Amino acid sequence: MRGSRVSWQAIGIFDSGVGGLTVLREIIRALPQEDTIYFGDTARVPYGSKSPDTVIRYAQEIASFLIKRDIKLLVVACNTASAVALPTLRKLLSIPVVGVIEPGAKRAVDVTHSGVVGVIGTSGTIRSSAYSRAIKRLNPSISVLARPCPLFVPLAEEGWTENEVTNITAHLYLDELRDAGVDTLVLGCTHYPLLKKAIAAVMGPEVKLVDSAEETARTVATILQEKKMLRPPAEQGNHHYYVTDIPAGFIRVGNRFLGGKLGDVYQVTLDDCRVTMEKS
Amino acid sequence: MRGSRVSWQAIGIFDSGVGGLTVLREIIRALPQEDTIYFGDTARVPYGSKSPDTVIRYAQEIASFLIKRDIKLLVVACNTASAVALPTLRKLLSIPVVGVIEPGAKRAVDVTHSGVVGVIGTSGTIRSSAYSRAIKRLNPSISVLARPCPLFVPLAEEGWTENEVTNITAHLYLDELRDAGVDTLVLGCTHYPLLKKAIAAVMGPEVKLVDSAEETARTVATILQEKKMLRPPAEQGNHHYYVTDIPAGFIRVGNRFLGGKLGDVYQVTLDDCRVTMEKS
Repeated sequence: MRGSRVSWQAIGIFDSGVGGLTVLREIIRALPQEDTIYFGDTARVPYGSKSPDTVIRYAQEIASFLIKRDIKLLVVACNTASAVALPTLRKLLSIPVVGVIEPGAKRAVDVTHSGVVGVIGTSGTIRSSAYSRAIKRLNPSISVLARPCPLFVPLAEEGWTENEVTNITAHLYLDELRDAGVDTLVLGCTHYPLLKKAIAAVMGPEVKLVDSAEETARTVATILQEKKMLRPPAEQGNHHYYVTDIPAGFIRVGNRFLGGKLGDVYQVTLDDCRVTMEKS
Repeated sequence: MRGSRVSWQAIGIFDSGVGGLTVLREIIRALPQEDTIYFGDTARVPYGSKSPDTVIRYAQEIASFLIKRDIKLLVVACNTASAVALPTLRKLLSIPVVGVIEPGAKRAVDVTHSGVVGVIGTSGTIRSSAYSRAIKRLNPSISVLARPCPLFVPLAEEGWTENEVTNITAHLYLDELRDAGVDTLVLGCTHYPLLKKAIAAVMGPEVKLVDSAEETARTVATILQEKKMLRPPAEQGNHHYYVTDIPAGFIRVGNRFLGGKLGDVYQVTLDDCRVTMEKS
């Protein structure tokens, strides 16, 4: 069996930096036959503290870079960009665009029993109310409590995943959510799974932690299946990486996020209207 | 008395974001007759975790923006950009370029008695060794101990200037410097003065904390004086602000940094080869 021409195109995935590799990992696990192109905007990271207008502009620039590389589906692996830029990208592009908010919301609605769901993320994600709206769209009777946790990303990047500073910070951010009785907490930022242990210690063993990566990969598989755009399962996908700052830092942290070897990473310059390319 | 034509030009100042306003404040205090143009690259902040190549490229883009606005002197108020981009900017520009590293180093050399100086800053600043080299150039017998403190900027931006998390973080970063007997600590990042209390609590009352802002303003005044580029002292300067993300966040945090009202802030777009302008 051989798929249509379009089935041989790659899946495009982008994030503000390295965090989206957790989503890529689940996509590779679910669809090992697919080629992927990952884009990390490491020269302009983070997005979480920036305005919607700026994040939308960056997302458009990256989408047009990936479209030129002939992708069949675009995954916005960054929660902040998913929260603010998805409608614009869907209007501009003719290929399917998958964000991480809707899959995360769906998973939270599926697993909550108490009907009280917590959501944590960057300031940009929480300010957008994108998770609350997505959850309410699926089940209007669920209460959603949302809380920005701006220090979690720098703590994860400092590698302080289990120390006293992280534990106290987790208490300051999360005690209120726990006391409000949430039974499900959406980790609405790709960095947060790295702090899972500290977050779980505050929330307690009864609270389920939802990370969008797996559910997003499932959504991607379903769409490609429905549109008959999947490659034959016997194939073996290739994986390419583009970043906007020099690749060294991305490669170092990326191997931890991906849980394996990254392969070749190329540096590109988007923001001065030249696209140069260097092999790392 | 009326100065030369050039004396009526403005002083240009740039930073990755809002922190350089502490330097602007000292310049306005020292030279109230001068016009200033401040540029904060809020759409791409922070610089401290990015590669020298990327920071140099950003600094060049901003310098050419300011040069088009006819400045007579450029102040690089960002420690990271001062640490990596100063040689490039001095080669490219015909006007004087003042960084914050040399003034901070000079001040540290002036105040140390023990001859053991500590320097803290972003990863980019510390990796560059720019402070160590500047101090050694002034006095080769001084020992310099340097330490990156990547969480201090997000802590200052979260407004956690005095809580338990900041205090423990300060201990984790600084205990070793204190135990090594430094008697002078250079706050090598414009955000760090906001955490002065927590830093001083770890270092103890005998250790002098050096912040480059005042000494940088003194350097600017000396250069303009020597070059006969100062405005008549009876004048009253005007102050303009440009940022790359929307002005709201800059204005909110900026008033705290400047210790007064900012005035009009304009948004510009550097990185897609259009320069648009909006009044906030």
